[in-house]
Amino acid sequence: MASGFILLALLALSASSALASDPGQLQDFCVADRTSQVFVNGFACKDPKTALVEDFFFSGLHMAGNTSNKQGSAVTAVNVAQIAGLNTLGISLARVDYAPYGQNPPHIHPRATEILTVLEGSLYVGFITSNPENKLFSKVLNKGDVFVFPQGMIHFQFNYGTNKAIAIAALSSKNPGVITIANTVFGSNPSISGDILAKAFQVDKKMVDHIQAQF
Amino acid sequence: MASGFILLALLALSASSALASDPGQLQDFCVADRTSQVFVNGFACKDPKTALVEDFFFSGLHMAGNTSNKQGSAVTAVNVAQIAGLNTLGISLARVDYAPYGQNPPHIHPRATEILTVLEGSLYVGFITSNPENKLFSKVLNKGDVFVFPQGMIHFQFNYGTNKAIAIAALSSKNPGVITIANTVFGSNPSISGDILAKAFQVDKKMVDHIQAQF
Amino acid sequence: MASGFILLALLALSASSALASDPGQLQDFCVADRTSQVFVNGFACKDPKTALVEDFFFSGLHMAGNTSNKQGSAVTAVNVAQIAGLNTLGISLARVDYAPYGQNPPHIHPRATEILTVLEGSLYVGFITSNPENKLFSKVLNKGDVFVFPQGMIHFQFNYGTNKAIAIAALSSKNPGVITIANTVFGSNPSISGDILAKAFQVDKKMVDHIQAQF
Amino acid sequence: MASGFILLALLALSASSALASDPGQLQDFCVADRTSQVFVNGFACKDPKTALVEDFFFSGLHMAGNTSNKQGSAVTAVNVAQIAGLNTLGISLARVDYAPYGQNPPHIHPRATEILTVLEGSLYVGFITSNPENKLFSKVLNKGDVFVFPQGMIHFQFNYGTNKAIAIAALSSKNPGVITIANTVFGSNPSISGDILAKAFQVDKKMVDHIQAQF
Amino acid sequence: MASGFILLALLALSASSALASDPGQLQDFCVADRTSQVFVNGFACKDPKTALVEDFFFSGLHMAGNTSNKQGSAVTAVNVAQIAGLNTLGISLARVDYAPYGQNPPHIHPRATEILTVLEGSLYVGFITSNPENKLFSKVLNKGDVFVFPQGMIHFQFNYGTNKAIAIAALSSKNPGVITIANTVFGSNPSISGDILAKAFQVDKKMVDHIQAQF
Amino acid sequence: MASGFILLALLALSASSALASDPGQLQDFCVADRTSQVFVNGFACKDPKTALVEDFFFSGLHMAGNTSNKQGSAVTAVNVAQIAGLNTLGISLARVDYAPYGQNPPHIHPRATEILTVLEGSLYVGFITSNPENKLFSKVLNKGDVFVFPQGMIHFQFNYGTNKAIAIAALSSKNPGVITIANTVFGSNPSISGDILAKAFQVDKKMVDHIQAQF
Repeated sequence: MASGFILLALLALSASSALASDPGQLQDFCVADRTSQVFVNGFACKDPKTALVEDFFFSGLHMAGNTSNKQGSAVTAVNVAQIAGLNTLGISLARVDYAPYGQNPPHIHPRATEILTVLEGSLYVGFITSNPENKLFSKVLNKGDVFVFPQGMIHFQFNYGTNKAIAIAALSSKNPGVITIANTVFGSNPSISGDILAKAFQVDKKMVDHIQAQF
Repeated sequence: MASGFILLALLALSASSALASDPGQLQDFCVADRTSQVFVNGFACKDPKTALVEDFFFSGLHMAGNTSNKQGSAVTAVNVAQIAGLNTLGISLARVDYAPYGQNPPHIHPRATEILTVLEGSLYVGFITSNPENKLFSKVLNKGDVFVFPQGMIHFQFNYGTNKAIAIAALSSKNPGVITIANTVFGSNPSISGDILAKAFQVDKKMVDHIQAQF
Repeated sequence: MASGFILLALLALSASSALASDPGQLQDFCVADRTSQVFVNGFACKDPKTALVEDFFFSGLHMAGNTSNKQGSAVTAVNVAQIAGLNTLGISLARVDYAPYGQNPPHIHPRATEILTVLEGSLYVGFITSNPENKLFSKVLNKGDVFVFPQGMIHFQFNYGTNKAIAIAALSSKNPGVITIANTVFGSNPSISGDILAKAFQVDKKMVDHIQAQF
Repeated sequence: MASGFILLALLALSASSALASDPGQLQDFCVADRTSQVFVNGFACKDPKTALVEDFFFSGLHMAGNTSNKQGSAVTAVNVAQIAGLNTLGISLARVDYAPYGQNPPHIHPRATEILTVLEGSLYVGFITSNPENKLFSKVLNKGDVFVFPQGMIHFQFNYGTNKAIAIAALSSKNPGVITIANTVFGSNPSISGDILAKAFQVDKKMVDHIQAQF
Repeated sequence: MASGFILLALLALSASSALASDPGQLQDFCVADRTSQVFVNGFACKDPKTALVEDFFFSGLHMAGNTSNKQGSAVTAVNVAQIAGLNTLGISLARVDYAPYGQNPPHIHPRATEILTVLEGSLYVGFITSNPENKLFSKVLNKGDVFVFPQGMIHFQFNYGTNKAIAIAALSSKNPGVITIANTVFGSNPSISGDILAKAFQVDKKMVDHIQAQF
Repeated sequence: MASGFILLALLALSASSALASDPGQLQDFCVADRTSQVFVNGFACKDPKTALVEDFFFSGLHMAGNTSNKQGSAVTAVNVAQIAGLNTLGISLARVDYAPYGQNPPHIHPRATEILTVLEGSLYVGFITSNPENKLFSKVLNKGDVFVFPQGMIHFQFNYGTNKAIAIAALSSKNPGVITIANTVFGSNPSISGDILAKAFQVDKKMVDHIQAQF
């Protein structure tokens, strides 16, 4: 995976991660216990008596991410990996920075709808519906504009202007997950067979080799 | 209800409104049909073939609300009432403006957790746990700080400084609902009996009359 | 918190507690393990092979609670804290006793709808909708009457007569949580700043000090 | 179906009815509209502006049901069919009266856990776990005792004493449904083939004919 | 329980087991950890870093089960007990083999809807609605036919022909549970009192003894 | 979209369609009303009194689909579009036929986990986890083998042999949705800008034009 996606990658949790409609909470809160050796659907929690105000806090979302990478964008995630108190609460955030002509390339959040607000600059954004229509809903957004990307739909943001852009995205899961299409299909570990990708994308196998070499 | 809460009131839908963990979506999207005469849990939808990109869009979140009211704050809501495409998707937004010494007074979202980001200024914020502890978790937030208010907990934000403050809140429901404690308890239509409130708050009935006259 | 609320307080679990729509069960039952050191959303369970009939049983709901307290009421809770077998099952009970002119003061169950049946006496009950209407739905109930308080709404019961009253409440969660409005707002630990409460309730700060001293 | 089950039958809604974990509410309330021609999962609602306090109210649970029937019991249901305001709220009630030696025969609520409180008399109650254990958890209950029947498990109550008994049951669904085992298996419309039942219950076909004639 | 049900019994997990609508997943997957001493709603998981492709795999569904038993049928289950990776994913399978005149006797899945496909032979199948209608929906199925048994409804399949039959059933839970009616009611451990069953099925107690002796 | 995907496309409903964890049912069944003009989350239902046994039935899954298309595969869907009775029940099926060297190319079900059984032939199958690992879990499956593709993960099946192959897939939604990656990204209506795709896949724009021309 290209180095430029390191921040983007942080949006997903360490090992394997993505999520959808979180079930309801069964107590006031259930702060994720980062030291627990017990794995469950979501995370095991700290003893609620030991919860601290810092468990509900994150600092630094006013800081720009480093967009010096191939896609020209950087995602600063604020989900349950950053705020342990988000466990069981079904929501998270991300700040996205875009260099001029930078983009957040086509991707899916398997477990969350996204609502994005442009804080600075202009973005061309869109999402595509499922088969058979595969209809593209796209729009140019300016400062103060808000747009919704429904859960599970492929979507993207592109900064077509000569200035940087900044957006805040809220996601309907504590752990929304990210599947960047190009990276996942052409950069998986190990690789998907070139025969399969050549037929899927209707290109010859050399082209598949070429694309796989980029990721 | 005091006039200062008009914008705050917009956070809830017209007739009666508040919500919690939204069930999963059963199609790509289900845009609320504002003309439907059919009422269901959530909203009836438009024929999906007629969905427009504008159904997923809102403009103007960079505009400050009018904080010239008793509480010195203004909430600009962006939920399913503003973006019909949020129907069934379990997320919404709000911008909150705070005059110097203004506050978003103690309130509850009966159907959503809130995650708040400070865009400008400083805020003293807190939430209180349920009985019997009623423990206050509070913190001073500065620009770029993020804080979580778990679903159903009484919480507040207070601008203790001499500059205005701005925050963006994301909420884990398309229709989170707002119950402003003072307004609801002392300003209901019709009023709750003074005897009940006098005993509940351990004050004499004249004081209840006095408070009720404010709302 | 006033001593009269000790029983009421039992409605909430030990540390911090309140809940909403419980997710479905994934096995016949999952009896809460009171000795477990593992915290999860809800409770970790006993080995199902060790479940006993007593895990599904509680005794003593025919016994009146002690209503000799400031509010003149007593809540005897029967939730997952009393019946471990209720874990994952999404329901609980409470018996409420009311002295003459006693009341169950305005409160919220953040995680449950309540359906209340009057076994003896008469009660004036009500709930208030969210912003902006804050409409009070109220009614006098007599023996055999049943009333519904929707999840997350502020509600109360008041015994306006000269006889004691008894009610049984069923709640749509194993751990519904209780937020008594006056106690939580004016009796939190530590206290909410008097400036905030004075502005929220539109009273002077001395009055806030006076009310806070009661809780 | 035997006449004695008329009241029991009322526990289920008119046409076909039973339910499990109700999804969360998406507004303060959504009162079922009994006049709607629109059928949805649950019920279509009245315009919330037209909701009345009576929509949340039921009267008469202090009245005994008529137990003069073959099973010697009567169920008075209080679910969404009786209280339209219970729609979307995930809870309901029933009063059960038992003549001496009367019983609520083995049955299942396909969509609800039940928590039962004995108001008067004594009951022998039990539930049976699923395959392969089919373990019976049973107990004698007296006044003030509470017992839990987990969702989907076959259960029963039997008044083994010479006095009448009364219980109140709360159920974790607005529309829990009832499947009385004997009536459903031997009294369906039309009948299940005698060959199938003879082999299932390991009896000869004449015995099946005999049992089917009772229902 | 008759020996012929050993395979059927495997459909349910070891101790006590059955389930309904599984809550959403909160990460890519959460493979059940068969060695964990921690019990939760569902199963505790392996460290996701240790997940293997075999955790998502089962072999042998082309093999016929042994139908030499009283009911003349065999169920080969493929749920979370066989594929640990199904944990949190809300789906499972079963293959059912039927000898000539064999049947899968009336039973309930308390936690799943079933969709059944006939691979070979012909079956007479049906389900019965809840009270008060207890309406039987039945149909003869041939090769390539598909039929749906809604969650919680009593249903059966009967091979009325002289050839064996084979079906594949998919169920909407990782752990659907099975309650075989005759076995559960007449073969529980310990037995339900004969008085209760005699009155429930309107037969004399000797007949109950006779039936109980079969299971 | 290539003609070969016509059957595959049928897996999704008419306008735009895909779904995830379906909420629980609130009555015995709620058969989709294909004539209704009311759109809701899922489908409006027929009057339950008019439900027919055919509403739960589908015929023809033993028939091979036509695999004479670019991908060499055909999907025959059996979801709520084919069986109206599946509405609210959270499960569906599909038969997949594969010509020699045919494949079901990389795709996502945004609203369902899939469990696939090989009825005939051999398949090389796999799924890829979300960022940052993008780990490929792959395996060769033979007759009688079963494999799980967790909800929202990109996955594929490839018939690497010289014989046809047949599989049955069960999906944890009545309307799982299909997003075929290549078709959706390179064949949307209208097209995604070539600049965006060139940067996302790290190829030059001519190559994007070439791929887009295939779909």
